[in-house]
Amino acid sequence: MSTQVKAGLEDVVAGTSDICFVDGEKGRLVYYGYDINELVGKASFEEVVYLLWHGKLPNQSELDELNAELIKHRDIPADVLELVRSLSTNAANPTGMEILRTAISYVGAVDPNKEMDRNTHLKQAAKLISLSASITAADGRFKKGEQYVAPRNDLGHAANFLYMLTGQEPDPLAVEAFDVALILHADHELNASTFAGRVTVATLSDLYSGVTSAIGALKGPLHGGANEDVLRLLMEIDSVENTAAAVQAKLESGVKVPGFGHRVYRNYDPRGLILKRYAKELTEKAGNTKWFEMTEITEDVVLKHFAKKGKDLKYNVDLYSGCLYNAMGIPVELFTPIFVMSRMSGWTAHFLEQYKNNRIIRPRAEYTGPVDLEFVPISERK
Amino acid sequence: MSTQVKAGLEDVVAGTSDICFVDGEKGRLVYYGYDINELVGKASFEEVVYLLWHGKLPNQSELDELNAELIKHRDIPADVLELVRSLSTNAANPTGMEILRTAISYVGAVDPNKEMDRNTHLKQAAKLISLSASITAADGRFKKGEQYVAPRNDLGHAANFLYMLTGQEPDPLAVEAFDVALILHADHELNASTFAGRVTVATLSDLYSGVTSAIGALKGPLHGGANEDVLRLLMEIDSVENTAAAVQAKLESGVKVPGFGHRVYRNYDPRGLILKRYAKELTEKAGNTKWFEMTEITEDVVLKHFAKKGKDLKYNVDLYSGCLYNAMGIPVELFTPIFVMSRMSGWTAHFLEQYKNNRIIRPRAEYTGPVDLEFVPISERK
Repeated sequence: MSTQVKAGLEDVVAGTSDICFVDGEKGRLVYYGYDINELVGKASFEEVVYLLWHGKLPNQSELDELNAELIKHRDIPADVLELVRSLSTNAANPTGMEILRTAISYVGAVDPNKEMDRNTHLKQAAKLISLSASITAADGRFKKGEQYVAPRNDLGHAANFLYMLTGQEPDPLAVEAFDVALILHADHELNASTFAGRVTVATLSDLYSGVTSAIGALKGPLHGGANEDVLRLLMEIDSVENTAAAVQAKLESGVKVPGFGHRVYRNYDPRGLILKRYAKELTEKAGNTKWFEMTEITEDVVLKHFAKKGKDLKYNVDLYSGCLYNAMGIPVELFTPIFVMSRMSGWTAHFLEQYKNNRIIRPRAEYTGPVDLEFVPISERK
Repeated sequence: MSTQVKAGLEDVVAGTSDICFVDGEKGRLVYYGYDINELVGKASFEEVVYLLWHGKLPNQSELDELNAELIKHRDIPADVLELVRSLSTNAANPTGMEILRTAISYVGAVDPNKEMDRNTHLKQAAKLISLSASITAADGRFKKGEQYVAPRNDLGHAANFLYMLTGQEPDPLAVEAFDVALILHADHELNASTFAGRVTVATLSDLYSGVTSAIGALKGPLHGGANEDVLRLLMEIDSVENTAAAVQAKLESGVKVPGFGHRVYRNYDPRGLILKRYAKELTEKAGNTKWFEMTEITEDVVLKHFAKKGKDLKYNVDLYSGCLYNAMGIPVELFTPIFVMSRMSGWTAHFLEQYKNNRIIRPRAEYTGPVDLEFVPISERK
């Protein structure tokens, strides 16, 4: 046994994968051979889902088949809807992530098909893509005291989500931008949530167990949630004029400003660049550029602050997604559940890959505790 | 980045831990310095829970405080009980593990205390120890069409579980044996479920998310479940006289007989030796030695079969626990949920340790997919 401790497993290669290539040096993100810049503006999220599961972009009949499967599962079954309603309106105020974790686990429990073949898993994965979106939309409405909006089968995945959340026909640019955001968050190699799920399914546990683990991991503030933090910070400042001074004051008092830096990307986060373009365009079209302007000022202040210290810091995927989602009418408490909606595609792709060539994932720990203690009766213990 | 792929992370040291030392060569299992043979027959499961959380055996007042906290949470809250009842009686026939995964996630969602300090986590951990037992007992009764039995506060943890499951005052030897089984399964270093949970909480996600991940991982047949398989195999044979020939036939046709061998223990699994003693004693006292006898014949046939091939195979913790649990009136479908009841102590101990000195756990994958593909419009795709 190697006795060198690999804390956090940093730079340890835990396996091979065909799904996603993160080129930190060049600032590139590749899904099954396609740079995200090849996909954005050309492929839909549904096509990317197919790509991640099957390793190729679908032809028209393959895409039609996937769409039919996705649409079939959009409407939330009555028992699941009641569970979501009871949680969304519970006095303990469960977060959207706690509701998704519980509801998805419930959906798995009541799935009568417990088979473990690839075809079953693909059908379950389609159900999970649709239901994670519908549950997120329903939770958002229940928390505002509104009624559930049933899905529309004539809309694509992104448009239908915005419709189920807002109850209104969404703006085409908002749909395009949301579709792009879903594509950009779809996968990111062995990030912590994907890895937690792969460890889970590698005992040959079911797909729902993998997804439940992954939701729990993404819930942590060191993983999902940074874009929430960005918008909450701006909402606290709440003024374009005060942004520069307020952010500068945060930096000088040593507070970490969210939305910057990345463990893997040394250069720009390619997802961030694309989201900034859409955020600018959509907030201008919506006629409310306040949060975008504040975000841009934040970028400027933070980058200059670190440049003075000789650090070439860059913004990441989380900086501009807050103002972008806000312009679509998505409340800040749904930002991490929306991350689930997107990453569900990558999670399920990774679990399908794990099942294909499975090995249990079981590292060792270096024992640093005491040894050879003798039992002392309770009456003699200090 | 090291480019050597560590498949399954076998022999990779993912971190340090004070909790548990598995000495595979010598066949020793140590909790915070105490060999399990020092604890069995002397300490209660509750004392071991305290040991795993605090790194020392409790004095009387510390144990009293823990017991009070455990007893406080034994009765299942009405909304959780309704969820368990609806799942246990659902036509899709959810497994006990799916019910625990969902109910525990629900308990976390409706916990109004979302603080992340050690004191909150210790209270949540005590709640999880008690509720995982009560939910398992309730599920067992509902599945048989019986009513929920409320807990008894004058009994210890092991005795109260058997009481809530069977509705009867349990036999003292059964209580002792069950208490020992809980101690023996309490922790096992970075096994797959503990590791899945540590990856989850290392994003600074909550304790319930860690436990939900761990339940999902333990659900897999490569991890929990082998003792179920042993008893199901014996139930299929269902005759002491036919056991030797039936097991021999399985071996010769290449079927793997569960309950033998271990990735870490090269010598005897120390837990197995202790469980065999209790299984013999309890089945003799109960006057039904059939499953014990069949298990002993199975041990004999399998060991001789492998000895002939020059392999010194040993039985593990799972071989004799099946006939032991059966003698306590525990149905086979609850064997893995009972594993949860016990391992809950080790899981929560590991998550408390992870929070104390946290670092996100995020390995890398070696990308083996294609690169530099050009987008092809859908009408031109094959």
